[in-house]
Amino acid sequence: METTALSRVDVDRAERRLAGRLWKTPVVRCDQLDALAGARLWLKAENLQRGGSFKVRGALLAVERLAAAGSRGVIAQSTGNHAIAVALAAAEHKLPTVVVLPSDAPPTKIRRIRETGAEAVLVGTTLAERVAVVEELRERYAYDVVDPYQNRDVVAGQGTATAELISQVAAAGGRLDAVVVPIGGGSAIAGACLASCGHDLAVVGAEPETVPAFTAALDAGGPVTVPARPTIADGLRPDRIGSLPFELSHRTIASVITVPETAIAEALRVALLHARLLIEPAAATALAAALDYASGHATDVGVLLSGGNIEPGLVASLLTDHSGRAR
Amino acid sequence: METTALSRVDVDRAERRLAGRLWKTPVVRCDQLDALAGARLWLKAENLQRGGSFKVRGALLAVERLAAAGSRGVIAQSTGNHAIAVALAAAEHKLPTVVVLPSDAPPTKIRRIRETGAEAVLVGTTLAERVAVVEELRERYAYDVVDPYQNRDVVAGQGTATAELISQVAAAGGRLDAVVVPIGGGSAIAGACLASCGHDLAVVGAEPETVPAFTAALDAGGPVTVPARPTIADGLRPDRIGSLPFELSHRTIASVITVPETAIAEALRVALLHARLLIEPAAATALAAALDYASGHATDVGVLLSGGNIEPGLVASLLTDHSGRAR
Repeated sequence: METTALSRVDVDRAERRLAGRLWKTPVVRCDQLDALAGARLWLKAENLQRGGSFKVRGALLAVERLAAAGSRGVIAQSTGNHAIAVALAAAEHKLPTVVVLPSDAPPTKIRRIRETGAEAVLVGTTLAERVAVVEELRERYAYDVVDPYQNRDVVAGQGTATAELISQVAAAGGRLDAVVVPIGGGSAIAGACLASCGHDLAVVGAEPETVPAFTAALDAGGPVTVPARPTIADGLRPDRIGSLPFELSHRTIASVITVPETAIAEALRVALLHARLLIEPAAATALAAALDYASGHATDVGVLLSGGNIEPGLVASLLTDHSGRAR
Repeated sequence: METTALSRVDVDRAERRLAGRLWKTPVVRCDQLDALAGARLWLKAENLQRGGSFKVRGALLAVERLAAAGSRGVIAQSTGNHAIAVALAAAEHKLPTVVVLPSDAPPTKIRRIRETGAEAVLVGTTLAERVAVVEELRERYAYDVVDPYQNRDVVAGQGTATAELISQVAAAGGRLDAVVVPIGGGSAIAGACLASCGHDLAVVGAEPETVPAFTAALDAGGPVTVPARPTIADGLRPDRIGSLPFELSHRTIASVITVPETAIAEALRVALLHARLLIEPAAATALAAALDYASGHATDVGVLLSGGNIEPGLVASLLTDHSGRAR
C-alpha cells in the first residue's frame, strides 16, 4: 500500500480507467422533491449502477490491479455492497472470492453475491468481528484482501461517482453548491472530498443518528468505535470510520448530518413515490440529509443515491401503515 | 384540425419545440433484465418525466398552441396521464382546466390533477361515457378540447419519446432492432411509428390481453369498440383505438403482443427489484411484451416505460405473496 496522499488526480485517473465499463447512471430531477427540499436536487442514481451500487467503481479498479499482479484470489469484508462489487469484479477475472458479511445482512445482498459464484461467510454484527475473520481467511488461503476503506483504488474509484455527478450537472447547465453523500466506512465521503477539489462546493456527510461514527471521529480527532445500535440503513452500519477516509475528508467536509431512522424511512418512500427510484436505506439517508440541509443553505444540491439493494418486504412495509393500508 | 398526414418531420419539429422544457429522461440498462430477455433492453424511463409520464410531451405542445390562439380554457378526457399532462400544461398558461376521468381512476392520478388546480370530473368506465361528458362540457364552457388521440400536436409530441430513445441509444453506441410501446388509445404507437421512419426498426405494440383494441382494429380493418374487461393497466383501458393513431400506425407496426395480467404484474415487479424503477402497469405491459418478444427476434430492444403513476398499495401487494410475506 502506498502511503502518499490521494488527490483529485487519482479520481481523474480512475475515471479514465473505468470509461465504458460501467453504466453512466443518470442524474435525476424531480419537481416534487425539489418542492420538499426548497432547492434543486440533482440525484445521482447509482442505485441503477451494475451490482446495484456505486461500490463497483472502486472494486473493479482494485481487483483489476490485483489480478494483473498475479493474485490467487480475493477476500473482502463488507455490509453487503462492497462484497457484491468485489464478487462481480473478481468473476470478470475468474478469481476465487470469499466475502465476509454480518450474520444479519439482507438476504437480497447475500443472494446477489452467491449468484456470482463467490463464497459468502456470515459472522457477527460488528466490523471488528468481520475483520478478525478476514485475517484468518487471508492466512488460510493466501488470497488478497480488498479493503473497503483503506484501499486507494477503492477510495479513488468511489470518488468517480461524485466527479461524474459534478460534470453531469454542469453539462445540464447547473452548478452544485453542495453534494450530500452517505457515510458508512467512509470511502464515499473521502472520494467526494477528492472529487470536489477545485470546485466551490460544500461536501456534506449523512450518517444514521444511531451510528454516528464520523461525528464521533470528528469529536475525538480520529476514528473511534461507537456503540453499535440498530439502523435500517444496513449499508451504514460500520461502527468506525476507516483511517484513510477520515484523513482524506475531515478537513474538507463542510458538515455531517445525523439522520433519525424515521427520516431515513420517509426519504426512501418519497424517492420511490415521487422520483420513482427504488433506493436502499443508505441512499435514503443521504436524501433525508439533503432535504434537511438544502433549504437555506443551498440552491443546487447533488445527492449520491449510493445503491438500490433492498429487501422487497421492507419496501412493502414502508408503503403500508400499521393496519396494512396503503399510505 | 388539419387533415394532411403527420410525418417524421412533425416529430422533429415537436422535439425542437420541446427542447429544454422537459426532463431528458435516461435510457436505463439492467444486466438482470437483459438476462431475462435474452437480448439487450434499452429502457426509456419516462416514468421519471415531469407529471410522471411521457404524455406531458404532447400536452405541452397542444395547450401552447391553444393558448396562443386565445383559448378561454381546456377540457380533456383521459384514463389519467393525459389529464395530468394537460392540467400541468394549462397551469403554465393559467388556463382553466376541466378533465374527465373514469370513476375508478387511481386516486394518485386524481390527486395529481387536483394539485395543479384543475377540476376533475369522474364518470363511468368507458371511453364513450367520457366523450359524452366532454361534449357537454364543451358546450357549457366554450373551452377547447385537447383530444388524447386525434390531436396532431399530441401525437407528434408523444413521438418525441421514441425519437429521443433512438438517438440516446445511438449516442451510447447501440442500434435498436425494435422498439416496444404500450397501446392505450394509440398516441404512443402512432408517435413511435412516425419516429421510426427512416430507421430499420420493428415497431411492436403491447396491449393487455383483456383489452385487445388494436388487435381487434387490425382484424376489422379499422377501429372497433371491444368489450371492456378489467385490467390492472389502468392507462391502457381505452376500449377503442383512435382513428388518427390507427391510420398512422397500422401499416408500419410489425406486431401487436397481447399481454396477460399476470405477466404485467410480474414485469412491474422485476422493473422495481432489478432495474430499481417504479413504473405503472401500462409501462409494465410494454416491458412484459419486450421480455416475450426479444428472445429470438432481436438483439437490441427499446422499451417505452411510459409512466410511473401507480398506487402505493398496488406496489406493496405485488411485493408480498398472498400470506403477506415478501416475495
